[in-house]
Amino acid sequence: MIYLDNAATTRPLQEAVEAAEIFLTERYFNPSALYGGGVAVQKEIAAAREEILSRIADAGHFSLIFTSGGTEADNQAIFCGGKRGNVVTTAGEHAAVYQSCLALKNRGVEPRFAPLRPDGSVDEEALLRLVDEKTSLVSVVHVNNETGAVNDIFRLARQVKEKNPRCLFHSDGVQAFGKISVRLTEEIDLYSVSAHKIGGVKGTGALIFRKNLALSPYLYGGGQEGNLRSGTENVFGIAAFGAAARVRFGSLRETGEQILRLRELLFDALDPALYTRLSPREGSPFLLSVSAAGLRGEVLQRLLEGEGVIVGTGSACSSKHPFSRVIQACGYRNDILQGVLRVSFSPDTTQEEAKAAAERMNEAASRLKEKTGK
Amino acid sequence: MIYLDNAATTRPLQEAVEAAEIFLTERYFNPSALYGGGVAVQKEIAAAREEILSRIADAGHFSLIFTSGGTEADNQAIFCGGKRGNVVTTAGEHAAVYQSCLALKNRGVEPRFAPLRPDGSVDEEALLRLVDEKTSLVSVVHVNNETGAVNDIFRLARQVKEKNPRCLFHSDGVQAFGKISVRLTEEIDLYSVSAHKIGGVKGTGALIFRKNLALSPYLYGGGQEGNLRSGTENVFGIAAFGAAARVRFGSLRETGEQILRLRELLFDALDPALYTRLSPREGSPFLLSVSAAGLRGEVLQRLLEGEGVIVGTGSACSSKHPFSRVIQACGYRNDILQGVLRVSFSPDTTQEEAKAAAERMNEAASRLKEKTGK
Repeated sequence: MIYLDNAATTRPLQEAVEAAEIFLTERYFNPSALYGGGVAVQKEIAAAREEILSRIADAGHFSLIFTSGGTEADNQAIFCGGKRGNVVTTAGEHAAVYQSCLALKNRGVEPRFAPLRPDGSVDEEALLRLVDEKTSLVSVVHVNNETGAVNDIFRLARQVKEKNPRCLFHSDGVQAFGKISVRLTEEIDLYSVSAHKIGGVKGTGALIFRKNLALSPYLYGGGQEGNLRSGTENVFGIAAFGAAARVRFGSLRETGEQILRLRELLFDALDPALYTRLSPREGSPFLLSVSAAGLRGEVLQRLLEGEGVIVGTGSACSSKHPFSRVIQACGYRNDILQGVLRVSFSPDTTQEEAKAAAERMNEAASRLKEKTGK
Repeated sequence: MIYLDNAATTRPLQEAVEAAEIFLTERYFNPSALYGGGVAVQKEIAAAREEILSRIADAGHFSLIFTSGGTEADNQAIFCGGKRGNVVTTAGEHAAVYQSCLALKNRGVEPRFAPLRPDGSVDEEALLRLVDEKTSLVSVVHVNNETGAVNDIFRLARQVKEKNPRCLFHSDGVQAFGKISVRLTEEIDLYSVSAHKIGGVKGTGALIFRKNLALSPYLYGGGQEGNLRSGTENVFGIAAFGAAARVRFGSLRETGEQILRLRELLFDALDPALYTRLSPREGSPFLLSVSAAGLRGEVLQRLLEGEGVIVGTGSACSSKHPFSRVIQACGYRNDILQGVLRVSFSPDTTQEEAKAAAERMNEAASRLKEKTGK
């Protein structure tokens, strides 16, 4: 099987699972317990926290709390950051941000959505025009989940704060963290990351935030995570996240270059008469969205599955809708929207796999084209 | 080591971990993915859902969504159930309910706390007096986390609804589920459970609710769990939860009788001149809270740890506070509050362990008494 849906989830790294499984056996203690076993487990959580945080931020200026995943981190950022006036976000957000912003309406906060450019990045000027003195939060995805377009969140955050210095800036970094080089600057107040997109396990993520930010909890209870995220810590998931970050960040630059070559190799091997590229060349190397215009992506996906190639049709999290909301917001026509395939890589993807996948994508599309007479 | 802090967390059952670990290796697919691997994993989630739900409710009348744990389930119940007027709960709640109810104040909802009887159960008449036509939710813990007192939530829910038929009834069942016999009746609208208290792993719980209840989501995003709990499902944790429930419910009655004998064996072996019983005899057999009046529980805990016996001093989730809020609400004097130890069992605890623990508890308390001259 050639697995190219790594933006939906990755196979957990064996090193990550092995490093963490002791917390499922001998070291099962509750990290809040005051006896030796509990205290030692709490220390392991602290070590994973430092491991992850230090990779993308200065631990003197930023904190990190573990959550149940990127979705919870996004929800906490939106609902705790966007308490008044309006919240400005983009049409290219992952559902965890997009739907949370829509839900703000019920809390008397107005969500505003900035349009996208064709490559999936936000129209920066349009976004800035939406920011006013009543904006409490701006949330912009770092790497677009579907096209891989990278928003310059650092420049955007600076510009937002020039316009409204009291406004908070959040970014969903789930597809950026552990994949592209990131160093948080003081303009970024909140940043969400996830474990299972980089070889950790499902059920763990984190919210990173500026140390002097008055963040409120979203889950209340026993006061874990500095009283900002209650609930017994998922020690296994947290330890696996730390181990996965260690592995992935250990070779971030080399991996990035290798994946970039892989992506272009795959794209170059696609028949241009069959596939249109949607992803920008300067986007995250880990993502390549293409469209077989006129054909149906989910049918292609099934044909490819039969040939041992697993690809996505858009964000897995919104797979129940006919078209990808995000690709639609890029401004494409319906025949392009129908035919979208998202190919996403992991550091373990090989050149042979990329070539074989492209061949089968060509075969599948031409077969389907013949069959449907298009 | 004799581990008697199973109310804080249990050692994961080997059967549960083994049944689930395939989801960390070959079957790592995103359950929202539309290809075979994803669909198959989604089916496993459905199987775990049925396994867990059917043990305590009629699946025709109740639904279950998986959450990141008991705390999240409690938060969703409180914040989504208690949207108006006032919310009535008890002074004996776990922090996940108690702190959530306190946080309702910021949302314009008044929390009301019913007092406890000395054994930790709620004063039913006092609770009913707090319910009025503006009460939107009543939340009563099923088994008190610290004393093991069992509230008759079924009778209470009926009485609450006689007084206000539109009011919802929630119960935190974390210390009841998989430990005592439970069958949800139509008066119970919402019920929270947790995996890691019954041999599952940390990071998974569930909220069970009446099928025709208009529950709102608390985490927004990709629409997982019937759009009521977004975020990529923690498949490993969910599968382990299903397996743990299968094991634990397979011998619920026998285990209950065995644990009851164990608890009384341990209590009878305690020196009555040293230890006062706080837990009622008719409470959950899995919990025994005692107090070495005049001594300090956390010092005793450390002495016992040195002797290889692990016990709690109160709910692990609130271990940072000097006294247990719940035991305090039972009406005890400070010298009793100081000396609380919570001994909690698992189906794997042996009679020999219980006897040995009691002996060492006697030794530790008499040694400490001598030393402090009390």
